[in-house]
Amino acid sequence: MSEKKITVLGAGLVGSLISIFLAKRGFKVKLYEKRVDMRNQRIDGGRSINLALSHRGLTALQKVGLWSQVKEICLPMKGRIMHDQDCNITYQPYGQEGQHINSISRSKLNMLLMNAAETSGVELHFEEQCVDANLDLGTCFFEGVTGRIKVESDFILGADGAFSGVREAMRITDRFNFSQYYLPHGYKELTIPATPSGDFALDPEGLHIWPREQYMLIALPNLDRSFTCTLFLPFEGKISFEHLTEPNEVQSFFKSSFPDAVPLMPHLLQDFSQNPTASLVTIRCNPWMVGKAGLIGDASHAIVPFYGQGMNAGFEDCRLLDDKLSKHRNQLSTAFKEFQANRIIDANAIADLAFQNFVEMRDLVADREFLLRKEIEMKLQESYPEVWIPLYSRVTFSDQAYSLALKIGQIQRSIMDKVMEIPGIEHNWRHMDFTDVVTDLKAQVDSI
Amino acid sequence: MSEKKITVLGAGLVGSLISIFLAKRGFKVKLYEKRVDMRNQRIDGGRSINLALSHRGLTALQKVGLWSQVKEICLPMKGRIMHDQDCNITYQPYGQEGQHINSISRSKLNMLLMNAAETSGVELHFEEQCVDANLDLGTCFFEGVTGRIKVESDFILGADGAFSGVREAMRITDRFNFSQYYLPHGYKELTIPATPSGDFALDPEGLHIWPREQYMLIALPNLDRSFTCTLFLPFEGKISFEHLTEPNEVQSFFKSSFPDAVPLMPHLLQDFSQNPTASLVTIRCNPWMVGKAGLIGDASHAIVPFYGQGMNAGFEDCRLLDDKLSKHRNQLSTAFKEFQANRIIDANAIADLAFQNFVEMRDLVADREFLLRKEIEMKLQESYPEVWIPLYSRVTFSDQAYSLALKIGQIQRSIMDKVMEIPGIEHNWRHMDFTDVVTDLKAQVDSI
Repeated sequence: MSEKKITVLGAGLVGSLISIFLAKRGFKVKLYEKRVDMRNQRIDGGRSINLALSHRGLTALQKVGLWSQVKEICLPMKGRIMHDQDCNITYQPYGQEGQHINSISRSKLNMLLMNAAETSGVELHFEEQCVDANLDLGTCFFEGVTGRIKVESDFILGADGAFSGVREAMRITDRFNFSQYYLPHGYKELTIPATPSGDFALDPEGLHIWPREQYMLIALPNLDRSFTCTLFLPFEGKISFEHLTEPNEVQSFFKSSFPDAVPLMPHLLQDFSQNPTASLVTIRCNPWMVGKAGLIGDASHAIVPFYGQGMNAGFEDCRLLDDKLSKHRNQLSTAFKEFQANRIIDANAIADLAFQNFVEMRDLVADREFLLRKEIEMKLQESYPEVWIPLYSRVTFSDQAYSLALKIGQIQRSIMDKVMEIPGIEHNWRHMDFTDVVTDLKAQVDSI
Repeated sequence: MSEKKITVLGAGLVGSLISIFLAKRGFKVKLYEKRVDMRNQRIDGGRSINLALSHRGLTALQKVGLWSQVKEICLPMKGRIMHDQDCNITYQPYGQEGQHINSISRSKLNMLLMNAAETSGVELHFEEQCVDANLDLGTCFFEGVTGRIKVESDFILGADGAFSGVREAMRITDRFNFSQYYLPHGYKELTIPATPSGDFALDPEGLHIWPREQYMLIALPNLDRSFTCTLFLPFEGKISFEHLTEPNEVQSFFKSSFPDAVPLMPHLLQDFSQNPTASLVTIRCNPWMVGKAGLIGDASHAIVPFYGQGMNAGFEDCRLLDDKLSKHRNQLSTAFKEFQANRIIDANAIADLAFQNFVEMRDLVADREFLLRKEIEMKLQESYPEVWIPLYSRVTFSDQAYSLALKIGQIQRSIMDKVMEIPGIEHNWRHMDFTDVVTDLKAQVDSI
């Protein structure tokens, strides 16, 4: 191989996983993290507490032989459980029998990956902040526990997240395209603890959603039988974080918006005032490689969390880069160039999809026509499982390129628009013949 | 007034002009420039040599009483003079009788504005690089001729261009939206000197264009009877800068692409190898004000040069901010907030328009149908001068908000699409009745 020594920046989920992939190939990997070792000291740093691990992430973990370990700390969620304002509950399966996504603790998974990285021969360094980098030489300068140090390598991999320092070094080079876009919504994490008898306070086999159009609350189960809730709400405006400053305002907002959740949240007011309100950014850039440095995961494509694909996309990056390394016999620069040439379009697609899914989650999931669409799509998938795969399943339960999933999803949507216009569809769909619909889809997909 | 002391960063065109506006209002203005004083030492720093000053820029200069001085160094350009590959010339007036844009030397105009700033009481500091700023306190730190200095003020105005340091300080604050997008094309400046007898080598009353679809050459006249030419060409690809490295390649490319220009360019090969190839960036951001700091001109909205509006938009910023200062009795923060609330949408519109005009300039201006459209539009304007104003005139010869010009331009374009489909239009347009067309436009504009 032409590159032997790799410096990976950021020992988060993606940095740890790519280090494992590289170490297994025989690269000498040094992994630097600016924060303390979370295995010794509890930290969270404002990131989300649990995540939804699905097919793409799982496939990457399988490739390095870690899935059986990770599975132990997963809680399967089979569908969306919607709570309306009158405390009625509706259930929507995510996919077909046997398909589910997994609630997993970010810190537990991260620690597992750090341990696996060490076992694979990765050298981990904590509390080392990268303060300067020479992208052409592959040199990084760190300031940390032992003062200022210089680390030379054949390739720098920036897995240092949405506010990546490696990307910042790239951003000021000529012809580097970049954007950072913030949603007008922020989020705040809250807790539904286990019941006094030690049980889950809600059904743990689903992702709970309280969709309220301009805002929403969601809840994911944890291994300790609590749920982590996330409130997504505009920063400014009539109903917004800026107008929820007094405890009585918070209390009455929750009571009227999420009446069935409030009794389950004994520490609501304390959580609300103590936990930070965080912002939601989408980052896009092009290229992902400058000189002897490349970006991976959130560093090159941070997305909003509404498709549950941030970590999954980052893990898929690792698997795809590893595929290219096989193809190019561990020539990292060559492999990385080919990886980015294919992957940027997919990163943009999942950024768009994640953004669109926010509207679906907070708004459409409570809509009757939307629920009917989902049911008809489910029937189409059952009847033609190789052809009609709902967009959500393409994204969540397949390895199809995100950009292709987005395109086919648009075709399926326009076909479904026509189906929904059929007079009496709401009564007759169960007995209708959809052969023409599926033929139409096939023809359109073939011509992409 | 609540703010008295203002630090302006960047003594370029916009920094100098806004300093004049502020000084005339009684603010105590300190203007800092990282480069040497161009009035003592010739520098260019890779920026374009001449610019097209039009209505919006002119209006701002009139407001501070500088137009009569500036006019002396202007060369009026009444239209586009197109050169095709067979050396045929076509002429397109920019507007109506008496309307023209002005070729002006960037450095001459900048020096005039610096002198006017000094006369107005602005304190100018050169060779002072801002290395740090506290946006909340209004404090800047400079490193320069006298070492490191700290400058406190009530408001910082960043007029420091496309790569603004003030904007960089804002960019890392939460919820700051930002994008930098580079065209795949670069540009290189070249020269057509005055003839041996001291005359212009081409008609000086127009802007010369050699449109060649994927690339183009343009030429603007200078006071010394030379022309500054700019070649716009892709960086990469079949016909591109990367493939023009050898003198014989350059020579044969120019001979086949711009046959009538080559004989006028005796220093072509020398210019081509010595002058830099520069990139073209579009910058967008929101907000333009964070804490006690605001952005103006290219710092907040750098655009590509194809509508000749970069400087004009920056000068219009100055005039509009000055209007808001009148309205809010010199309360700069209040005035700035209202300025940005109105102006960001217009900055985005001119960025889009400038981008679109690249396609028009390099491509459509050589197209027969396009020329016919222009002629019909000219007739419409003559017949209904209050109603049918071509998009180019709305942008170039009016103070209409860019965003409104863009919207009306889209309406006019769709109306013209229908007009162009009328059978025999190419023969009959001179004698046709366009009353319905104008009524249609009026109705659509009224409903915006």
